[in-house]
Amino acid sequence: MLDPTDWPAFRALSHAALDDALDYLAGIRDRPAWQPVPDAVQARLAEPLPQDPTPLADVYREFVQSIQPYNSGNIHPRFFGWVQGSGTPTGALADLLAATMNPNVGGRNHGAVYVERAVIEWSRELFGFPDGASGVLTTGTSAANLIAVLVARTKVLGSHVRETGVNIEGGRLIAYASSATHGCVRRAFEVSGLGSASLRVLATDSLHRIDPATVARSIEEDRAVGNRPFLIVGNAGTVDVGAIDPLDELASLAEREGLWFHVDGAYGASAMMAPSIAPKLRGIERADSIAFDFHKWLQVPYEAGILLVRDGALHRATFASTPNYLTRMPRGLASGEPWFTDFTLDLSRGFKALKVWFTIKEHGAKRLGAAMEENVRQAKLMGNLIDESDAFELLAPVQLNVVCFRYRPDHLEEGPLDRLNDEIVIRLQESGEAVTSSTTVGARRAIRVCIVNQRTTDDDVRITLAAIERIGNALASAP
Amino acid sequence: MLDPTDWPAFRALSHAALDDALDYLAGIRDRPAWQPVPDAVQARLAEPLPQDPTPLADVYREFVQSIQPYNSGNIHPRFFGWVQGSGTPTGALADLLAATMNPNVGGRNHGAVYVERAVIEWSRELFGFPDGASGVLTTGTSAANLIAVLVARTKVLGSHVRETGVNIEGGRLIAYASSATHGCVRRAFEVSGLGSASLRVLATDSLHRIDPATVARSIEEDRAVGNRPFLIVGNAGTVDVGAIDPLDELASLAEREGLWFHVDGAYGASAMMAPSIAPKLRGIERADSIAFDFHKWLQVPYEAGILLVRDGALHRATFASTPNYLTRMPRGLASGEPWFTDFTLDLSRGFKALKVWFTIKEHGAKRLGAAMEENVRQAKLMGNLIDESDAFELLAPVQLNVVCFRYRPDHLEEGPLDRLNDEIVIRLQESGEAVTSSTTVGARRAIRVCIVNQRTTDDDVRITLAAIERIGNALASAP
Repeated sequence: MLDPTDWPAFRALSHAALDDALDYLAGIRDRPAWQPVPDAVQARLAEPLPQDPTPLADVYREFVQSIQPYNSGNIHPRFFGWVQGSGTPTGALADLLAATMNPNVGGRNHGAVYVERAVIEWSRELFGFPDGASGVLTTGTSAANLIAVLVARTKVLGSHVRETGVNIEGGRLIAYASSATHGCVRRAFEVSGLGSASLRVLATDSLHRIDPATVARSIEEDRAVGNRPFLIVGNAGTVDVGAIDPLDELASLAEREGLWFHVDGAYGASAMMAPSIAPKLRGIERADSIAFDFHKWLQVPYEAGILLVRDGALHRATFASTPNYLTRMPRGLASGEPWFTDFTLDLSRGFKALKVWFTIKEHGAKRLGAAMEENVRQAKLMGNLIDESDAFELLAPVQLNVVCFRYRPDHLEEGPLDRLNDEIVIRLQESGEAVTSSTTVGARRAIRVCIVNQRTTDDDVRITLAAIERIGNALASAP
Repeated sequence: MLDPTDWPAFRALSHAALDDALDYLAGIRDRPAWQPVPDAVQARLAEPLPQDPTPLADVYREFVQSIQPYNSGNIHPRFFGWVQGSGTPTGALADLLAATMNPNVGGRNHGAVYVERAVIEWSRELFGFPDGASGVLTTGTSAANLIAVLVARTKVLGSHVRETGVNIEGGRLIAYASSATHGCVRRAFEVSGLGSASLRVLATDSLHRIDPATVARSIEEDRAVGNRPFLIVGNAGTVDVGAIDPLDELASLAEREGLWFHVDGAYGASAMMAPSIAPKLRGIERADSIAFDFHKWLQVPYEAGILLVRDGALHRATFASTPNYLTRMPRGLASGEPWFTDFTLDLSRGFKALKVWFTIKEHGAKRLGAAMEENVRQAKLMGNLIDESDAFELLAPVQLNVVCFRYRPDHLEEGPLDRLNDEIVIRLQESGEAVTSSTTVGARRAIRVCIVNQRTTDDDVRITLAAIERIGNALASAP
C-alpha cells in the first residue's frame, strides 16, 4: 500500500538519485568541508507534521536543496574534527542493500545472522580471542562499553544482580581508568546504576597514558577501606591525543588482582590490521572484553561498533531471556540459536553487519591497515611542519594520528591565546576549507586535528596548516 | 585511499545493484517468504578474515548468491511473524542517501540535526506534547524504554544518582506493568541497576489489559512496607495480542499518586495517525514519556525508534555532560545546542532520521494511518474466517492487528495440540508460503499472526489460512 504506484517512475528517480549521490562523493573535494545551515533552510525544515502525501520527486528535491548541501563534513578530505570516519561509496551501497532486505537481526535463522557472525568471527580472529568468545554489533563503542560494564558487573555480583539490582552493601564496586578515558565510560557507570563514584579517574603520565603502578596503589587503598575493585579499563587510542595505555601491564595487573580487563579501543583497536601500529597494542589480546567502532578508522558508514567478550557464556547470562513471544524452535525461522538479542540491549536490530562485511571483503585487512598507517604518517608530517614553524606550538607529542597544537603569536598571554585559538577553529570551519575541533590539553586550549580519513592527502595537511596560519595572522593583527 | 579507483566501473555496478534491488522488491510476492540457509552457504560465509582485496563485483556476486536469497522474510506480503515492519523502497533509498552523507548526528550544527529535530517535532505534535518536551531517535523501543526508566529514576532520586548509583536504602523503587509488557522493560530494570525485583508484573484482564485498581492496590501495599512506587508503564499494543492498556485511567492514577507515567507504544502508538484507532489510545497524550518505533507500523527500514519526554530538562539532566573534546562553541560546526548525545546512550549517532523524514513526507500521516487501518481490517477479516471455520479456534479476541488462534482437530488433547500447532508454524515457514510466529496464550500454544505489513492483501490472509489448514490436516492425519 506504500510501495510505488508507478514503479518505472520510482526506478528512474532512484537511478537519478544514485547518480547524484555518486557525483556528490566523487566531487566532495570541490565542496566546502562545512557550511552553516541558513536560517531560511532551518525554517523550511521546521514545518508541521505532513498530513497529506507529497510526490517523491518533490521530497527528493527538498532533500537536495535543504539537507544534502549542509552536511557535517566528515566525508570531506580535510575534515579532522573529533574522531569521525569518512565512509566509502561501497559502504553506502551496502546500506542500500541492507535496507532493501530490511531484516530484523535480533535473532532467528536467516542470511543476515550468518553475515553478522562472520564479522564477529573476523574480529575475534583479529585479537586472537578463543573459541567460546562472543561478540555483538552495536551502535558504537558507547553501547559496547556499557554492555562490557554490565558483563563485568555480572562477573562480580552474579547474574542474580539482574533481579536484585545493585547495592553498595558489601562494598562499592570500583573500576579504574585514566583521566583521558572517553566520557561514555562514565556514562556506562551512570546508566548501570553503579554510579560514576564507582569509576576512579586516575592521572596520566606525560604521554597521556595511565600508570599501572597508580592503578595498583588505588586497588590496594580501595581494598583497605572495604571497597570492591572489579574492573580496569584500558584505552587503545584516547579521544584527546590518541594515547595507548600500557595494555600488557594492565592485563597482568588485572590478572594478578582478579579484575575484569576491558579495552576501549573505539578507534585504535582496529589498528591491529596495521603491522606498524599493532605492536603498540600489545596486551589487548589478553583483555576480557574489547569494544571498538567500524565507523571510525575502518571507514564503515555510521553506525557500527562491536563488543567482544572472552567469556561468551557470561556475556549471554547478562542478557538472555525467553519470553513466550520469542520462543525458540528446533527448525524454521525461529531456530538459529543463540540469538543476538541475548547479548545486547536491543530486541530489534538492523543489518549493520552488511556494510562491515562489504568493506572488509572489498579491501581486506591489509589495505585497511595501510590506510590507517597513511593517516599516522600524515599526523607525523603535520607534527613536523608544526615543529618547524614559528607560528605554531605542539601541545602534545604526536603518538598516533592526533595532533594537538596552537597558533601562537609572540605577544599574547594565555587567556587571549585560548580565545584566539577557539576563534581560529570556528573561522576555519566557516571558511569551508577544513574542519578541526577544539580541546583542552593540560590547561591550554588546543586546535585538535584527528586524521581518521581515507581521503586525506599530504597536500590536504599542508593546505589546512596554511589556512590556520592565515586565519590566525588575520585575527592576531586585527585591532 | 578506499574510494573507487575506477569510478565509471563503480557507477555501473551500483546502478546494476540498484536495479537488482528494485527487481527484488517489486517481485517480492513471487519469492518464498522464508527459506533455510543451506549448509554450504553457511560454510561459505564462515571464511577467515580476508587479508587481501576482492574485486567489488565479486563481493557483490557473493551477496546476491549467498545472502540476499536467505532473507528473514518481513518484506514479504505474507509475513506475519512477531511485530516486524515490511519497509518501503523509499526507506531503502533514503538509507542510501543517509550513508552517502554519513554524518555523525551526535550533535553539532548541520543539516541532519535539523531533520532529526523535525521528526521529533512531528512526533511531539502527534501526541500533543508541550513546548519544552524533548525527544531523541533511538535504535528502537528497547533503548527508548531504557532511557525512559533512567529519566524516571532521575526524577525520583535526583540527578546525583548518576554519581552515587542506586541503592535500596531509603526504600526500593517500584514500577508497575502488566504481565503482557514486553521483555525489554524488564531488561531496562536489569540494565539500570534497579533490578527486575523493582518491576511489579501484574495480572491482566480477559482482554490482556492491566487493571488500574490492581495497580492502585499494589501501590498502597508497597508504600505500607516502605517501598517507593515511582513509575507506571502502560502498553499501547502489547506484543502478544495487541492489547491497549486503559491509558487514561493509568494517567489519572499516576497523577494522583505522583508517579511517572511511561507508555510503551512500540508499534501501537504510531496509530495516533489512524482516526479509527487513535480513540483507543486516549490518555497517551497525558504520559510523561512515550516510546515507539518507526520501523514497525510506520514501515521505516530497521532501525529507528524514538523517545519523547514531557520534561525535556529532566531528560537532559539524565545524560548531559561536556568533556573537553566536546566543547560547545557559539558558532561553527560545534554550535547547535542542545546536542542529541545529551539525551541518549550514544555519543556517535547515524542519520536514522532521514528515512523517517522521507517516509512521512512522501505518504503523510493520513495515508500512513490508513495503511494501519487496513491491517486492522485484515486482522478482523482473519478473525472472522477463523470463527467461521471448524478447523480453527480463536485464542484471544482480535483487538487490533494481532490474531492468536490454533488449528484444532477434534481428536487431540492439549499436549499434542500444542506440539501440533508449533509444528504447523515451522512447516508453514519451511513451505515458503507465509510466516507466522508461535506464542502461548493462557496455557495454550498459539499460531500468532501480526499484520504490520503494508504489502498484505485480503487474498494473502486467505492464502495463509488455507495453507495452515492444509498443513494441519496433513499432520493430523499422519500416523
